[in-house]
Amino acid sequence: MPNSFGKLFSVTTWGESHGPAVGAVVDGCPPRLPLDAAEIQAELDRRRPGQSDIVTPRKEEDKVEILSGLFEGRTTGAPISLLVRNTDQRPGAYDEMREKFRPSHADFAYQAKYGFRDHRGGGRSSARETIGRVAAGAIAKKILALGGAAQNGSAVEVRAFVTQVHTIAVPEGALEKLPKLAEVEANAVRCPHAATAEKMIERIKKVRADGDSVGGVIECRLHGVPPGLGEPVFDRLEADLAKAMLSLPATKGFEIGSGFAGTRLRGSEHNDLLVPRGGQVRTTTNRSGGTLGGISNGEEIVFRVAFKPTATILQPQKTVDVHGKATELIGRGRHDPCVLPRAVPIVEAMAALVLVDHWLRHAAQNRVFKF
Amino acid sequence: MPNSFGKLFSVTTWGESHGPAVGAVVDGCPPRLPLDAAEIQAELDRRRPGQSDIVTPRKEEDKVEILSGLFEGRTTGAPISLLVRNTDQRPGAYDEMREKFRPSHADFAYQAKYGFRDHRGGGRSSARETIGRVAAGAIAKKILALGGAAQNGSAVEVRAFVTQVHTIAVPEGALEKLPKLAEVEANAVRCPHAATAEKMIERIKKVRADGDSVGGVIECRLHGVPPGLGEPVFDRLEADLAKAMLSLPATKGFEIGSGFAGTRLRGSEHNDLLVPRGGQVRTTTNRSGGTLGGISNGEEIVFRVAFKPTATILQPQKTVDVHGKATELIGRGRHDPCVLPRAVPIVEAMAALVLVDHWLRHAAQNRVFKF
Amino acid sequence: MPNSFGKLFSVTTWGESHGPAVGAVVDGCPPRLPLDAAEIQAELDRRRPGQSDIVTPRKEEDKVEILSGLFEGRTTGAPISLLVRNTDQRPGAYDEMREKFRPSHADFAYQAKYGFRDHRGGGRSSARETIGRVAAGAIAKKILALGGAAQNGSAVEVRAFVTQVHTIAVPEGALEKLPKLAEVEANAVRCPHAATAEKMIERIKKVRADGDSVGGVIECRLHGVPPGLGEPVFDRLEADLAKAMLSLPATKGFEIGSGFAGTRLRGSEHNDLLVPRGGQVRTTTNRSGGTLGGISNGEEIVFRVAFKPTATILQPQKTVDVHGKATELIGRGRHDPCVLPRAVPIVEAMAALVLVDHWLRHAAQNRVFKF
Amino acid sequence: MPNSFGKLFSVTTWGESHGPAVGAVVDGCPPRLPLDAAEIQAELDRRRPGQSDIVTPRKEEDKVEILSGLFEGRTTGAPISLLVRNTDQRPGAYDEMREKFRPSHADFAYQAKYGFRDHRGGGRSSARETIGRVAAGAIAKKILALGGAAQNGSAVEVRAFVTQVHTIAVPEGALEKLPKLAEVEANAVRCPHAATAEKMIERIKKVRADGDSVGGVIECRLHGVPPGLGEPVFDRLEADLAKAMLSLPATKGFEIGSGFAGTRLRGSEHNDLLVPRGGQVRTTTNRSGGTLGGISNGEEIVFRVAFKPTATILQPQKTVDVHGKATELIGRGRHDPCVLPRAVPIVEAMAALVLVDHWLRHAAQNRVFKF
Repeated sequence: MPNSFGKLFSVTTWGESHGPAVGAVVDGCPPRLPLDAAEIQAELDRRRPGQSDIVTPRKEEDKVEILSGLFEGRTTGAPISLLVRNTDQRPGAYDEMREKFRPSHADFAYQAKYGFRDHRGGGRSSARETIGRVAAGAIAKKILALGGAAQNGSAVEVRAFVTQVHTIAVPEGALEKLPKLAEVEANAVRCPHAATAEKMIERIKKVRADGDSVGGVIECRLHGVPPGLGEPVFDRLEADLAKAMLSLPATKGFEIGSGFAGTRLRGSEHNDLLVPRGGQVRTTTNRSGGTLGGISNGEEIVFRVAFKPTATILQPQKTVDVHGKATELIGRGRHDPCVLPRAVPIVEAMAALVLVDHWLRHAAQNRVFKF
Repeated sequence: MPNSFGKLFSVTTWGESHGPAVGAVVDGCPPRLPLDAAEIQAELDRRRPGQSDIVTPRKEEDKVEILSGLFEGRTTGAPISLLVRNTDQRPGAYDEMREKFRPSHADFAYQAKYGFRDHRGGGRSSARETIGRVAAGAIAKKILALGGAAQNGSAVEVRAFVTQVHTIAVPEGALEKLPKLAEVEANAVRCPHAATAEKMIERIKKVRADGDSVGGVIECRLHGVPPGLGEPVFDRLEADLAKAMLSLPATKGFEIGSGFAGTRLRGSEHNDLLVPRGGQVRTTTNRSGGTLGGISNGEEIVFRVAFKPTATILQPQKTVDVHGKATELIGRGRHDPCVLPRAVPIVEAMAALVLVDHWLRHAAQNRVFKF
Repeated sequence: MPNSFGKLFSVTTWGESHGPAVGAVVDGCPPRLPLDAAEIQAELDRRRPGQSDIVTPRKEEDKVEILSGLFEGRTTGAPISLLVRNTDQRPGAYDEMREKFRPSHADFAYQAKYGFRDHRGGGRSSARETIGRVAAGAIAKKILALGGAAQNGSAVEVRAFVTQVHTIAVPEGALEKLPKLAEVEANAVRCPHAATAEKMIERIKKVRADGDSVGGVIECRLHGVPPGLGEPVFDRLEADLAKAMLSLPATKGFEIGSGFAGTRLRGSEHNDLLVPRGGQVRTTTNRSGGTLGGISNGEEIVFRVAFKPTATILQPQKTVDVHGKATELIGRGRHDPCVLPRAVPIVEAMAALVLVDHWLRHAAQNRVFKF
Repeated sequence: MPNSFGKLFSVTTWGESHGPAVGAVVDGCPPRLPLDAAEIQAELDRRRPGQSDIVTPRKEEDKVEILSGLFEGRTTGAPISLLVRNTDQRPGAYDEMREKFRPSHADFAYQAKYGFRDHRGGGRSSARETIGRVAAGAIAKKILALGGAAQNGSAVEVRAFVTQVHTIAVPEGALEKLPKLAEVEANAVRCPHAATAEKMIERIKKVRADGDSVGGVIECRLHGVPPGLGEPVFDRLEADLAKAMLSLPATKGFEIGSGFAGTRLRGSEHNDLLVPRGGQVRTTTNRSGGTLGGISNGEEIVFRVAFKPTATILQPQKTVDVHGKATELIGRGRHDPCVLPRAVPIVEAMAALVLVDHWLRHAAQNRVFKF
């Protein structure tokens, strides 16, 4: 089931960019969770097109409808079906793509795989597919907020934000404390470092004016995660986070804790020493990024995701058509010059899905039978 | 099944560092594949301790026994059980770890998760677990070599090598052509750039003399992969590669193609333009790293994996004991000052497992029924 | 994912009896299959309420909408989302069930499991859930018809029919030849033996007049299945068929080939002798029912499913309320006095889903790489 | 992974009848369970050949070795690898089967599927494969005994026994109370009704003398199962039990509760009325067999499994050889004239595996997060 993610708490997404609708089915949601369409809508609004002047102007309300799994405001344990109708389809805008493969898009790969493709806006490979992820992730976040609190003394927070756009990055060490949601949402680019955010926005506007695009880096932190989540040896927590992130459109890299930079340290510099603190075993540093051996160790989980520059640019590019002939193509359609601002809630959604799934798996294996 | 990997071609590993044995069960191997224990042994010998003067001196022959799934030198389609007895166990050497958590090892995380742990040499979290992966990967490589050739006109090659150790890296652009296996195996550090390899070996010896350790980066290339492998949307080829790599001990990052560096380019610089070449649709550059939309596009698949410095160092470190008391620990046991030379065949094994699994999945979905 | 079925060709169903809609997502459908909503509708019409005077009069058109996975009349390989709105909801009719558990219904079991339930018409445990299965099964049938023919020389036929209602059964040996679809559809009870069908209909009308209900047996035959489908050792073809059938509401038993009756024969009477016929290895009898060792052997696959009498009866019954107090309940709502006529397309759908899934799995493992 | 069973508590079996060994890997075993090889051995001894004068005389000790997952007498949460060496191999005895397909055995089906087969004693299709199941089931039983007691107030008992051999059956109603293990083990045929057991043994000896074989029925009861286990809609408890049973060699049918006989009752006769008893919701009868809507309802789970007569008989039979020529074959090798006595612990093992898996799944979904 390549369109499903998660073992115990799972999401299946479906839908194409210019088909009638997109959606998701969430299976394995615990019963009795209070849930409201408005809570899901709030997250969808964070990824919606047209939300600011630095994202695509495609006009979609992305209004979610809950079709099952709820009764009198609470989940029943049955699958939750989520539906968002596509409204602003302009399939005609894509007529040229029927014949020509867009460079660095999935067009040719889909053609090679399936021998047939829905060319309209990338069809299934469109980032509209992530609507289902964000909707499912909103439910996961709610579970973490309520359920984490009940089990854990404090809610688990899932916080992503932009730390780099093109060559502009938040200064090292400037975001040691977990940024608040309000700080992230304070600007259109979702970078909680205000001065940097301003420069990022300026840069995005500049490249858009050039008919060009940029990428960048999103950092995500999972705060309040108890120790013990993650299943050795293949379903390590960081392995499932890596898979979740690399399953997103436009991602090219994942690192946890010290990541690639940590490879330049010696062990004596890199190791996180253990100390007793508040009756718990804690570390003095967090180069591990919150997991060891694939299992959470009670520290903040910190990872970063690399996003490439948007493949669609409004400049002529060399390409090949479906008959194998060389040709040229100029990007059309309504696209984001930089996907990162809208990718923030998507990264959070995937992280929340991984976390809830692992929480359930951990508890099943280690807490049900007491020996 | 957290100790299993793969949907159609799967491996399940089992075993602890100082238990009686380690092993693996491979399920889903196609029938009639010619297979010999010596072929598996050859790969195990590449990850064996004691193979050179820059790796751990633990004395293990790592002799593999095939217990099932073979008949008269060919696979039958039944599961293949692979067994390697542990011989050089020195559990007494780990008595101190029964009481004390080793910094940046999985000891505390396992204790937090299971409330109980086999402390001897890390138990299940030991890198000896990867023996099963390498053995299974040897079968996957054979399938790719024979089967890839039959389907594809040329064998699929899976080639990993060390590109960075601590601060020493292969000069940019120095390894454009796929290195030959012999070039990789030409030195103890498995870096096909001879001059750099020499410096890396020197550095590893230096840090070992200091009782310290170093990490680095392994690059892996999959050559000859046909277009079409990879399953949108969650089981993207790069997503499963990322999961495979982050499931390895000591890994902190994964990037494909342009990776993190690519985030500093504009779309107009980053896009891979398409051209017809040899009757095929090819790209002029390969910043995508061989996949688009999660599907192979026929170009070389190129990814890199970050390994942290070995956590065990022969220096006193602050830590906590199982009673929550602050204490100190000096590393013992026989360890690698740098895991990368022995990790090369492990990275190849995981990449081969991902590739065979996706090849089978792709063919099942797209080639069985012809419409 | 308890609401999903199938490994490579899978269906996920969702929806409650009196919620806004029911539906399914089909993942793993091969690309380029010609598909039309009308083909799915035709199967749904066979299970629709109100189709004859011996089934429930609930007025539902069960109009299916295809929301994704199709482009210009062909499947794309992307998930196919299928939606059927509920229209004739009368939730008020179920007010009494909010407080009282219906005997031999799932009410108490759901309450015990989830601590909460949608009591309206059984919620998720309603047989309306099978709409998604029938819709998905229609796609599987089309694949078998077209794809089976292409691979196999002749289409694979999936044919279920009623062989017993209450104490009325088709005479032994009367249906040796595979009944035609038209023969099955020739009467309201879907028994291709006309004389028996007449008696069955009479019996159903009689018990309905008594406010009572009856069960029976459905036989299903899979004709034209090539040898080789089925995966030893756990995913045997008959094991997955058994699971599929016991996952249906109201089923109490499954048998293949000689079944329970075969236990009264000696081996010398029971064994199917092998003979060469038409260049193939065939059997003289078919007590095995078309599989051996979990793998199809090229003979007709024949199995039977036992359905209990409908739990809802229009007579007062002793029961317990949600407060644990003894009470009494009289069945209400619009129910089938006998579920078998409408269960015929459901049994076919599940059988077709199993078959397509196993066909893909078999081909992946045994046909992709040639050694 | 066709050789694996179970989602959270899983077993993977491997091995051929005349290969070096058979075994299993258990993944997902909760940590800290006290476990001893002798406990597993005790169950293996119940299925061992040569245990009485009505079973095969093949001389196998079936001595189990635990290779991983245990530390100081307790499970660690890591996979448990179980190994049994084959000792009494007589591959030469099977030379004729290399060329000839045995009637009603899997020989031809394996050849058709894989194009290649290990003909020695059926290879993978041999019932020796069930050794791994019984070993894994012994662990599951221990979990149910200890863990069930801790959660439930009383241990969960898994009890199978023979109720029919050929035409000899336990009189109806003679085994209303759960038979004790000692009563089952009191005779060689494992029928707790002593007078019937005597006749069964006599019949088995008679057919063996004739060079023939017989089948029969095993009943299994799961006593003390709490309400709530089982996952709608596809992973119903009875669906997974049915799959488990039909995955066993020689099985032809499964029924739960009233089964096929229940199809001859009216709803008013068949429904299990609910009553309050001991502070719990209970039923006055148990025609449902302990599950409703796929979920356990707190009553005893009762199911029956049909086994065909052993396919190997010591009489000449018509068959076909690998070249498609008609020929004749006389059974050789050492076989059971009736598999049922040795199948009793196998049925129990599979039932225990299903139950533990569903217990973990239920708890994960419904007990981890409290809303």
